[in-house]
Amino acid sequence: MSTGILVMIDRPTLGQTGPGEPFRVLPADETALRATVLAATRGDGIFETAAIRDGKVQAAGAHLARFARSAAMLDLPEPDPDVYTRAIERGIAMLEDASDAAVKYVLTRGDEEDPTVGPIGWAHVHVSEDFTAARRDGLAVVLLNRGYALDVTETAPWLLQGAKTLSYAVNRAALREAARRGADDVLFTTTDGYVLEGPTSSLVARFGSTLVTTPAEAGVLPGTTQQGMFAYAEGIGLSTQLRDIRVDELAAADALWLTSSVRLAVPITAVDGVPHRVDDALTAAVNAYLVARTD
Amino acid sequence: MSTGILVMIDRPTLGQTGPGEPFRVLPADETALRATVLAATRGDGIFETAAIRDGKVQAAGAHLARFARSAAMLDLPEPDPDVYTRAIERGIAMLEDASDAAVKYVLTRGDEEDPTVGPIGWAHVHVSEDFTAARRDGLAVVLLNRGYALDVTETAPWLLQGAKTLSYAVNRAALREAARRGADDVLFTTTDGYVLEGPTSSLVARFGSTLVTTPAEAGVLPGTTQQGMFAYAEGIGLSTQLRDIRVDELAAADALWLTSSVRLAVPITAVDGVPHRVDDALTAAVNAYLVARTD
Repeated sequence: MSTGILVMIDRPTLGQTGPGEPFRVLPADETALRATVLAATRGDGIFETAAIRDGKVQAAGAHLARFARSAAMLDLPEPDPDVYTRAIERGIAMLEDASDAAVKYVLTRGDEEDPTVGPIGWAHVHVSEDFTAARRDGLAVVLLNRGYALDVTETAPWLLQGAKTLSYAVNRAALREAARRGADDVLFTTTDGYVLEGPTSSLVARFGSTLVTTPAEAGVLPGTTQQGMFAYAEGIGLSTQLRDIRVDELAAADALWLTSSVRLAVPITAVDGVPHRVDDALTAAVNAYLVARTD
Repeated sequence: MSTGILVMIDRPTLGQTGPGEPFRVLPADETALRATVLAATRGDGIFETAAIRDGKVQAAGAHLARFARSAAMLDLPEPDPDVYTRAIERGIAMLEDASDAAVKYVLTRGDEEDPTVGPIGWAHVHVSEDFTAARRDGLAVVLLNRGYALDVTETAPWLLQGAKTLSYAVNRAALREAARRGADDVLFTTTDGYVLEGPTSSLVARFGSTLVTTPAEAGVLPGTTQQGMFAYAEGIGLSTQLRDIRVDELAAADALWLTSSVRLAVPITAVDGVPHRVDDALTAAVNAYLVARTD
C-alpha cells in the first residue's frame, strides 16, 4: 500500500486565482495525475523533502527558499509559499501519526499535451522510515564521477546542477552502481578532482575544529540539514567553512558525514572500501540537535 | 484538452503473468497515475516516441529494440514487446483518425512508496502535430555544451548517456536557452570539442557523397530516423559513416539535419547565428521516403 495523504494543489504558483479551495485532499494510493503530466513524461519539475517531527515541518523556511531557488533555475513560475504551507498543514492534520513523518512537495510545469493546464503542485505527507540504525552505524560510500568539471554551473547553467529537479534517474543509477560495488551510498566527484555531494545528501567534513562543505557554486544543492549542522557546530565553538574540497583531502578528514533532511547526519565509515575514522560523540550530539530542531 | 487514448499496461515486462486483460484503455485526460509513481517523483523510467502513418507504427521494431536497450541501461526488467505492440494497436484502433498520429510509450520502475507495485507501463496514442513547415523551412540551432567528455559512456555509465530516460529536465532547459538566444533548437557538444545530437533528435551531416552521424559510443541515442535516412541514402548510392564529428568540421558540411521520429529530417539553416547551406533536394526526397516508410 502506498501510504499517507496526498494534497493536490490547484493553484501552486504566486498570483494564480480561482474559486473555491486551492487544494484537494485524497489518499496517496489513488490516481491523481494524468499520464501526460510533465513530471512523468519529462521529469520537468522540482521538489523538496522535509522532515516532520511532532506535527511540525523542520527547517520549513529553508526548504521553501530552496524550492523557490530551484523554480527560478528551471524558469518555472514562483511557487506560492503560503499555499504550500497550508497544503502541508492540511496533510499533517489528516495523518494518523505525525510524530515522525515526512513531506515531499512538488511543482511541475504542466501537461505535455494540454497547454491549457498550468503548473501543477502537490504535497505528499507520510510516516517516515526509521534511520536510527544508519545514524548510529554509518554508511560505506564509493566515489563516482559526475562527469562535469567544478565550474559547470558557470559555464553551462542549462545543465541545472544544484537545482532539485524531478530528473533523478542518474542519482538512482549511481546508487545501483554503489550497491554493485558493495557500498551503501555515493559521493560524486568532478572530472577535475573535487568532491561534491551524495545523490540525495550533502557532504560535511571535519578537519580539526572546522566543519567544511562544498559551496553551491560547485553545482551542489545547498543543504538544509548541512546548514542546521553548521548552526549547531558554531554554537559549540567549532568553525565552519564553505570551500571546494579536493578528493585527495578526504583521507585526512577527522570525520565525514552525509546530511539530509530525513536521514539527518550519517557518518561515512568507508570510502571506496577503505575504512574512515568516525566521530561518534559529534554524530550523536548533532543528530540529537537535528531531531529536536523546531526552526 | 489532453487528447488521445491512454492504454495503461498492467504487466509491461517479460514473464509477468496475471488474470484478465493486461491493459486498460481510458481517455488521456483522465487521471491514471499515483503521485508516488517513480516516473513523476524521480524521472525513473524510459520512453519511446514513434510516428503512426495510416494506422501503422513506423520503424516499430527499431523503437522496441531501443526501448529494450534503454531498459538494460537502467537495470529495468525487459519490456514485453508483444504487450506493448498490442497496447499500441488497441490505442490506434480507438483513435478517431490515425492517418497522421504518434505514440509515446513508457516503462517506469514502480512506485516510490509502495514496493508491492511492480513496473508500470503505458502507451499514449494521439494525433500528431504538423511539422511540414519545419521540414521545408528548417531550424536555427545553437551549440550548447553538455558538460561531458566524448568518452563519458565508457568512464561513467551511471550517467546514462544514450539511454532514453524520463529525466529530460536538462533537455528542456537547453531548449529554453536556445529560445533565449533566438534559435529553434540545440546541438549538444562535448567538453573536448565534438558535436553530439539535439535534445530530442540525431545529427546527420553530409560531406560530399557521404552522410555522417555520431556513433552511440559517444553517448548519443541511436536514432531510428537517422537509421531510416541512412537506408534511403545507401539506396540512392550515397555512402554512410558513423564517426565522431568535431565542432570545427560543421562549417564545412554540405548540409546538416536534425532527425527524429515525428518531425523527420529537418534541415539546419543556421548554427550559432551563422547561416548554413541546405540541400533542399535531398531533404525533400528523404522526407518523402520517411513519411511513406512502412518498416
